Amino acid sequence: MNDRRIAIVGVGRMGANMARRLKDCGHTVSVVYDVRREAAEQLAVELGCRVADSLAAVTSAAEVVLTVVTDDVAMRELFLTPGDSLLERAEGKLFLNCATLSPAVQVAVAEAGVAAGAMVVEACMASSITQAREGTLYLMLGGTAEAVAAAGWILEDLAQARRHVGNPGQAAKVKALVNMVMNSNTAALAEGLGLGTALGLDPTLLLEIFSQTGANSRVLATDGADMVDREHECYFSAAHAAKDSGIANAMAAAAGVAVPLSLATEAQYLRLCQLGLGELDKSGIAELTFAGRAPA
Amino acid sequence: MNDRRIAIVGVGRMGANMARRLKDCGHTVSVVYDVRREAAEQLAVELGCRVADSLAAVTSAAEVVLTVVTDDVAMRELFLTPGDSLLERAEGKLFLNCATLSPAVQVAVAEAGVAAGAMVVEACMASSITQAREGTLYLMLGGTAEAVAAAGWILEDLAQARRHVGNPGQAAKVKALVNMVMNSNTAALAEGLGLGTALGLDPTLLLEIFSQTGANSRVLATDGADMVDREHECYFSAAHAAKDSGIANAMAAAAGVAVPLSLATEAQYLRLCQLGLGELDKSGIAELTFAGRAPA
Repeated sequence: MNDRRIAIVGVGRMGANMARRLKDCGHTVSVVYDVRREAAEQLAVELGCRVADSLAAVTSAAEVVLTVVTDDVAMRELFLTPGDSLLERAEGKLFLNCATLSPAVQVAVAEAGVAAGAMVVEACMASSITQAREGTLYLMLGGTAEAVAAAGWILEDLAQARRHVGNPGQAAKVKALVNMVMNSNTAALAEGLGLGTALGLDPTLLLEIFSQTGANSRVLATDGADMVDREHECYFSAAHAAKDSGIANAMAAAAGVAVPLSLATEAQYLRLCQLGLGELDKSGIAELTFAGRAPA
Repeated sequence: MNDRRIAIVGVGRMGANMARRLKDCGHTVSVVYDVRREAAEQLAVELGCRVADSLAAVTSAAEVVLTVVTDDVAMRELFLTPGDSLLERAEGKLFLNCATLSPAVQVAVAEAGVAAGAMVVEACMASSITQAREGTLYLMLGGTAEAVAAAGWILEDLAQARRHVGNPGQAAKVKALVNMVMNSNTAALAEGLGLGTALGLDPTLLLEIFSQTGANSRVLATDGADMVDREHECYFSAAHAAKDSGIANAMAAAAGVAVPLSLATEAQYLRLCQLGLGELDKSGIAELTFAGRAPA
């Protein structure tokens, strides 16, 4: 099945690294596309493939279209907007949608895809750039059993773990919850480390004690030292964190569930964005909680 | 050195289990004391020791006095209040103070103890009842190097790990930070699980996915399933969580550090207390975030 052609739409660091990984595994990446044409051309040169001139040309040049765009707005442009669309002559095609989106958009895209005769799988990624490059993503899948099975040959080279969560939209909900809890844990960790440092405690000692106690968390391991060292090279941006917590908070509002910590987390990340620091990694939230760091 | 007599002041579940552990290890627990006289008498029968009739009698009956009381108020009664006091004829005695207190009280107790000719070690516990019983506590120690060394023979039977953090009061600060972050992570987890359940997702699936992703944390392992199952038998009470986050938030206010998540966490735990649910385990915070659980 590996001779089926794959298109990549959205060549940010996640999409580009997934493309590299697929090529390494011997798959045929036939075409790439991005609204930032230069980025697409650069990757095309690297991979030895073509740049599509339109969304319709993407779909016609591949059997599988993997989308890794930024947000709901970009996703609607691909699938749900009149004019040029990935769904032109999409019958029999397989769409693998990897962006973190609101569940409603995942559902709308899946419905539009099915109406166009295509299969649609949402593949929400709970991992970052290194895992994309190495094919060790953790994927939460939404779609029909048939569609998920049809995507197996490509997913197994992208991911070390795949969980089929349910129908389209369900994986997006789980992903939003994962990031909601992750972001709150990150904001809480930044408070603990920032306050401890302000109190004159050794942050390295705090990291060690936190890791041995009830304060331990995955984000302590991934972001703790970065917070102390102000090492905020971006793997998952503060702007994305604000977006994802916002998706979760909107779901909570609609469901009538009170989520005060997640609201506080979104507010912290939005504040970081307002300070012009939205492109820092999510660990950058520590810039708000360590004395003397935040711009006025 | 094991023939030195040990007194236990405060025989709640932590103090009682530390006393049992010390007896198991061959130490001499000579006397116990609690403002709840009946609880002290019950433990004295179990351990085959005496109940002291006053604080002064506690100190006269032991070389080492281990205090495990509830809060600052109870601690002040032991050391800092005119009249009956643990510091009566305290010269040469060693006090091991294991309660979670505000740093200022730890400092005041240490100063008063030194003025009375005693040695004082704060030994803040980042563990719970099972670890107390099994001698596998994680202890953060505050005090002079001399005092900490003098306590070694007893601490090694109580704890699997000891970190000497600094002078008196420093360990209390670290402990407050540990619990601050732990409580926020707990509140955030309750939001994620409660919202997910309201969205119709399988909470068992959520627990598994959270554990494999950036949402993972120590409290996910200790409290996640309990939140889903409403299993809130108390190991660390919601009332204690409210108190400890409050201590951290007071330190943050004094230091001028903004801690919006910790403030939201304290508010959630206080709300649980106001609903009469303060004696639930800290996992009980999920009663606020799962639909249909919280009393009006």
